[in-house]
Amino acid sequence: MKPLKVGLLGFGTVGQGVFEILRRNQTEIVRRTGRAIQVEMVSRRQVALAQKIVGESAKVVSDARAVIANPDIDVVIELIGGYGIAKALVLEAIAAGKHVVTANKALLAVHGDEIFGAAAKAGVMVLFEAAVAGGIPIIKTLREGLTANRIQWVAGIINGTTNFILSEMRDKGLDFATVLKEAQALGYAEADPTFDIEGVDAAHKASLMAAMAFGIPVQFDKAYVEGITKLGAEDIKYAEQLGYRIKLLGISKRVASGVELRVHPTLIPTKRLIANVEGAMNAVMVQGDAVGTTLYYGKGAGSEPTASAVVADLVDIARMVTGQVAQVAPVLAFQASSVQALPILAIGQVITSFYLRMRVSDEAGVLAKVTGILGEAGISIDALIQHEAKDGESQTDLIILTHDCLEAIMDKALRQVEALPSVLASVVKIRKEELA
Amino acid sequence: MKPLKVGLLGFGTVGQGVFEILRRNQTEIVRRTGRAIQVEMVSRRQVALAQKIVGESAKVVSDARAVIANPDIDVVIELIGGYGIAKALVLEAIAAGKHVVTANKALLAVHGDEIFGAAAKAGVMVLFEAAVAGGIPIIKTLREGLTANRIQWVAGIINGTTNFILSEMRDKGLDFATVLKEAQALGYAEADPTFDIEGVDAAHKASLMAAMAFGIPVQFDKAYVEGITKLGAEDIKYAEQLGYRIKLLGISKRVASGVELRVHPTLIPTKRLIANVEGAMNAVMVQGDAVGTTLYYGKGAGSEPTASAVVADLVDIARMVTGQVAQVAPVLAFQASSVQALPILAIGQVITSFYLRMRVSDEAGVLAKVTGILGEAGISIDALIQHEAKDGESQTDLIILTHDCLEAIMDKALRQVEALPSVLASVVKIRKEELA
Repeated sequence: MKPLKVGLLGFGTVGQGVFEILRRNQTEIVRRTGRAIQVEMVSRRQVALAQKIVGESAKVVSDARAVIANPDIDVVIELIGGYGIAKALVLEAIAAGKHVVTANKALLAVHGDEIFGAAAKAGVMVLFEAAVAGGIPIIKTLREGLTANRIQWVAGIINGTTNFILSEMRDKGLDFATVLKEAQALGYAEADPTFDIEGVDAAHKASLMAAMAFGIPVQFDKAYVEGITKLGAEDIKYAEQLGYRIKLLGISKRVASGVELRVHPTLIPTKRLIANVEGAMNAVMVQGDAVGTTLYYGKGAGSEPTASAVVADLVDIARMVTGQVAQVAPVLAFQASSVQALPILAIGQVITSFYLRMRVSDEAGVLAKVTGILGEAGISIDALIQHEAKDGESQTDLIILTHDCLEAIMDKALRQVEALPSVLASVVKIRKEELA
Repeated sequence: MKPLKVGLLGFGTVGQGVFEILRRNQTEIVRRTGRAIQVEMVSRRQVALAQKIVGESAKVVSDARAVIANPDIDVVIELIGGYGIAKALVLEAIAAGKHVVTANKALLAVHGDEIFGAAAKAGVMVLFEAAVAGGIPIIKTLREGLTANRIQWVAGIINGTTNFILSEMRDKGLDFATVLKEAQALGYAEADPTFDIEGVDAAHKASLMAAMAFGIPVQFDKAYVEGITKLGAEDIKYAEQLGYRIKLLGISKRVASGVELRVHPTLIPTKRLIANVEGAMNAVMVQGDAVGTTLYYGKGAGSEPTASAVVADLVDIARMVTGQVAQVAPVLAFQASSVQALPILAIGQVITSFYLRMRVSDEAGVLAKVTGILGEAGISIDALIQHEAKDGESQTDLIILTHDCLEAIMDKALRQVEALPSVLASVVKIRKEELA
């Protein structure tokens, strides 16, 4: 089947991420989609710079309209940003019968109804997974995953800059202005951080999620928006004493008289998972009447996390425009013809780290013998607890955390350990994963 | 458009949940789908009992094959469970050209390749969101949300019974046998809990997720499976001392030589979100090369959370079989014709609770005056911190957490508070959400 052909408008961080993912994971994507997805054209003012990155594989032009005019192109990806030229180009692409993928939350929050209306008339899709919470598939979850539910509320940490600042203020007890400077130095905040720190960016995203949760128009203009600039370090400290953390939340909630739509700093009980989402990470909670409370967590920004969402939208389009059931929803995610017979490893062939508990005689030299056997096997020790025996007892527990090793080697070493006279019972072995 | 007609095989907890959600949320579902989804027939051995629940709206039969034979039925939902009759019925439904939705992870983990193969041949869908992690849309996430990625690993708490037991063991310092009895009394564990506590149920689910993450056949028979029955209370305690929690994880991981597929108790750093998933809740982490680490959290079992996933699959089918782009992927989740103009509330009309910080003179009677004003306004106090002034200072902070009240009433009360001579600066007001 012929590739789905894509034109990129704008070739900055996210655009380059899209290009790189489509290049690097093309095989995997074809296995999932049943056809290739190919960047055919790229528009960027600095043509030579962009051409250097894309090489021979795609044509680079300075005029975005040349991309839209190309009849070979199936999907236009808008990554220019802002409300101005981006709006005109998106509407022109729709009018030209192209499907559109965009990460532009500002555009959709302000002009969404006009754009979606035009797309419906033209019979094309406008997909925007990348506009909210980066690579976390929260748009798909609201559009498809939770469709059984009457959604009651959506609450999210949907701006990484402000969450980074709040995390740092709490961690280090610093005030807002100091941490903002640090965030700017680290690239977590822009030179003009207004949209982030005043809550505007979060309100753009919250407006989109509210529309999808409740089936209402996108109404950014009616959102209540309050940023984090007036937050004192002492409020973070007092909140902590009371069992709460302060997060900038984008909240939409269905109430008897309508819908609440608001962005503001919010105290959340420390014991909630979302209160423990730190740094530049994002998380969205959705409460539905059937499913209860659910949470979605991941990186909310950055080149590849955002591009991950753009490419997922492309795969959705590629699957849908082929129009055959098995392609639209390949039951096991990959096309049946692309399933591979990778071997499943026996547990002995798995490399992981271990927790070991040994019941040992409380006598000199046991530790040396045990660590000697492990050392011989090339198993290194990460941490260790050895208690003295309780009064009147001659036995105690020896606890060891190891670094990574092959399980077969560990098992062989443990048989030697268990053969020691001072090791009094079978060793308890539990695997450990850092999940970092 | 005529309704999508559904036949339910089995009418226990989940089946009744499906029926109830489709009844209660029919309007919302039609708004999302563009057509109704109607339970046309139900099969259950106790016909009278089932008929009492469904009333006149659907026909109840004792013979599941009568449902499959009904030419009006578009989708068969299999909720019988197990490998026996359920397998025969699913294959017969596929042969009859029906789409199938099932929550039966055991069946799919063992006979998935045969069933999916038959479905591909017949050109029908077999959807199974409910088979893994209840209402959390993790199957959709693997099939569609993360398609840009070369997935590196999937690790999940995907059995609520064992997570409840491990949480209780840690919380209360009890041993496995004691907590198992408690879990059985509470209905969190079955009379024969073998499949849960020995890790078999988690391995069924991990095998399905591994197939979807890596594009390999479903290979439950090759999974390494170790349950929690031998876990000692002391191991949970020692792990805690070392900065880890023990969870039963279903792990699949891509390594150079193949795929790891294993279920076993696992130490996880306490600071990871997933280590803090307690009780019967589920959570799945997915690591992709583009998106990084993501996490999906919610209820993994129960009537309506599971039925939420079944109904989402029905909506997917209803959208896909209509075959028009705007219906397959309504951009804002609801059909354009169903968007409602619900009012967005002004912030003054929002009801929430508040954190208040007041700079006050350190003198007798201030607290009484402030709480008096709040009390007059009907605002009740949840918690309070009042420090004595530091040595040599005559001012201090008064911190109040309130219960829910209308923001307009709060603002009016705060104007009175700020007019008090002993209140020395504007009151800092931060909203609070329990997100429970």
